[in-house]
Amino acid sequence: MTDRPVLAPTRGELAALLADARRAGRPVGLVPTMGALHEGHASLVREARARVGDGPVVVSVFVNPLQFGEGEDLDRYPRTLDADLDVCAREGVDVVFAPSVEEVYPGGVPAGSTSGMVTVEPGPLGSVLEGRSRPGHFAGVLTVVAKLFGLVRPDVAVFGQKDYQQLALIRRMAADLCLGVDVVGAETVREADGLALSSRNRYLDDEQRTEALALSRALHAAQEAAAYGLAPALDAARAELRAAKAVDLDYLEVTTPGLDSLPDPVPPGTEARVLVAARVGTTRLIDNMPLRIGAAPHDQTPDQQGDH
Amino acid sequence: MTDRPVLAPTRGELAALLADARRAGRPVGLVPTMGALHEGHASLVREARARVGDGPVVVSVFVNPLQFGEGEDLDRYPRTLDADLDVCAREGVDVVFAPSVEEVYPGGVPAGSTSGMVTVEPGPLGSVLEGRSRPGHFAGVLTVVAKLFGLVRPDVAVFGQKDYQQLALIRRMAADLCLGVDVVGAETVREADGLALSSRNRYLDDEQRTEALALSRALHAAQEAAAYGLAPALDAARAELRAAKAVDLDYLEVTTPGLDSLPDPVPPGTEARVLVAARVGTTRLIDNMPLRIGAAPHDQTPDQQGDH
Repeated sequence: MTDRPVLAPTRGELAALLADARRAGRPVGLVPTMGALHEGHASLVREARARVGDGPVVVSVFVNPLQFGEGEDLDRYPRTLDADLDVCAREGVDVVFAPSVEEVYPGGVPAGSTSGMVTVEPGPLGSVLEGRSRPGHFAGVLTVVAKLFGLVRPDVAVFGQKDYQQLALIRRMAADLCLGVDVVGAETVREADGLALSSRNRYLDDEQRTEALALSRALHAAQEAAAYGLAPALDAARAELRAAKAVDLDYLEVTTPGLDSLPDPVPPGTEARVLVAARVGTTRLIDNMPLRIGAAPHDQTPDQQGDH
Repeated sequence: MTDRPVLAPTRGELAALLADARRAGRPVGLVPTMGALHEGHASLVREARARVGDGPVVVSVFVNPLQFGEGEDLDRYPRTLDADLDVCAREGVDVVFAPSVEEVYPGGVPAGSTSGMVTVEPGPLGSVLEGRSRPGHFAGVLTVVAKLFGLVRPDVAVFGQKDYQQLALIRRMAADLCLGVDVVGAETVREADGLALSSRNRYLDDEQRTEALALSRALHAAQEAAAYGLAPALDAARAELRAAKAVDLDYLEVTTPGLDSLPDPVPPGTEARVLVAARVGTTRLIDNMPLRIGAAPHDQTPDQQGDH
C-alpha cells in the first residue's frame, strides 16, 4: 500500500508542494503525460525515481489542446484521472499536476498552433515525419513542455522513446533554449506480442488490435533485413505492412538516430532509426526501433560484409 | 571606488559565480545588454539593484547575431567591453557575463533567424512596427533572452522602455512560456535636449545628431496635440519629422499600451503609445512615449473636450 500522491490542480499549489524540496536542494523529476496512464508511463516514473532519489517525482496530466490539429482526437482522447492517480500511487509519485486548460493557457488557446501568443518554434525537424502529417503539432508540444518545465523547474524530465521525434525535439529545445533540464529517453514498453503501449490502443477493437501488430512486425523485419542494406530493410518492412489490409500506412522511414537523412550510399555499420506511422481504422499509431544498416545481426566480420 | 565586477566568459563560470546566491535563496537580477553601455544601461542596473537588494546583479554583454538582419550593423556595432566593465564597476554590478558567440550558439548561428534550431516564435506582435522592417528580429531577440534567462535563472530582469516592443514581447514570452522571471521596464533616459540614449547614437555626426532630435520633438508634439484627438497627434508629429530633412521616416504609429490597434473612434481619455522609427544617414533610430488621446494635458473637463 502506498499513499496517493498529492493532486495539484493549480500553478500555486504545485509551487507550494515543491518549495521544500527546492529549498533543501533536492532534485525534482518530471514525467509529462496526457494521462490515460499505462505500464509505459509507469516505467517513465521508475526512471525518474532512479534519477532523483529522495527528491520529488512530479507527473503532469494534461491533454494539451495546442498540439492537436483539426479533425484529430482532442475531444475523445481518454481522460481517466482517477485511475491515473492509482497508477501514480503504486509507483510512489509525489505530486500529480493536473491543471485545467485555463490554468495552462490563461489567455485562451490560440487558434492555430503558433498564433496569438509567444510559442516555441521547432525548426526544420518539426516539419518531417509526424510534422508533415500534423502541421503545428510539435510547436504545440514544445510550447506546453516549455511551460511545464517553467512551472515545475525539474532537474530531470523523462519521456518515452515511442514518441521518438518528440523526444529528439525536446532534447534540442532543452539545449537550444538553455533550459537546464536533463531530458531522458526511456525505452518503449511493449505487450508480449510486440504492440507498443499507447493510450490510443484503447480505441482499437479486437480485429484492429491484431492488424496493428503489423507495425512492430514491420520494424522487427527491417531490423533483421538491415544487415543486407537499406533497401532490403525498407522492402521487408513494407511487405509486413502491405499484408495487413486494415493498416493504412502514413510513412515508413529510416533516418539517422538524430532524424537526419542518411548518407547515400550508407556506410556499412551505420546506426539508424526506422520509424512508422499508420492509421488502423480511425486510430493513428506510431512506432520506431533502432537498427544497424549493412552489418549482419550477430557480429558479422568485415569479410562477411563484403558479400552483400 | 568600487571593485570591478567578476567577468564570466563561459556558462560554467557564470553558474559557479551564482551558486552561492542560489543556495542562500538570494534573488538574482539580470540586465541583458549588447554592451556599449551608457547612462540608460546604468539606470537599468540601479533598477535591478533596487529589486534584488543584496542578491547579485548580473549584466550580460552579448551582441546577438541572431537578431541582426542582412545589411544591418552587426559588424560595426560598437564593442567596448573594457569601458563597459568600468560602468558596471561604478554601478556595483556583481557579475558581467560576456560570452563568445560560440558559447551561446555551440551549434553555430542558424542562417535566417528561425531555421536550424529550436527558437522562440513571437507570434503576431513580432511582425508589426519594428518587426515589419526587421523580419526575424524579434525571434532572434526572444531566443537569446530565453537562453540568457535559462543560463542566469534571474528572479528579475530589467529592460529599457526605449525598446518598447521588445519589452512588450519579452513580458509576453515570460508569461506565455511560464519562465518565472519578473520582467521590469525602466523609463527611457534622455540627453538634456531630448535625444533618447542609444548605443547607436555614436554613429551620428554633429549635424545628424541635431537632426535626430526631430524624433523626440515629434513624440512630444504628439503628446501635446493628443488632447485634440488621434489625427491631430499624428499630424503634429509628422510636421516635426518632415521639417528635419535628414530624417528618413520608417514608421510613426499610435497604438494601445499593449501595441494593439486603437479602437475607431478612440474614446476620450484613452491611454496610448506613440512610436517612431527613422533613419538618419545610415543610422536607424527608434523612440516612443506614452500619450493620452482626447483629453487636454491639464485636467480638461468634459465640457471643454466638447469643443474639439
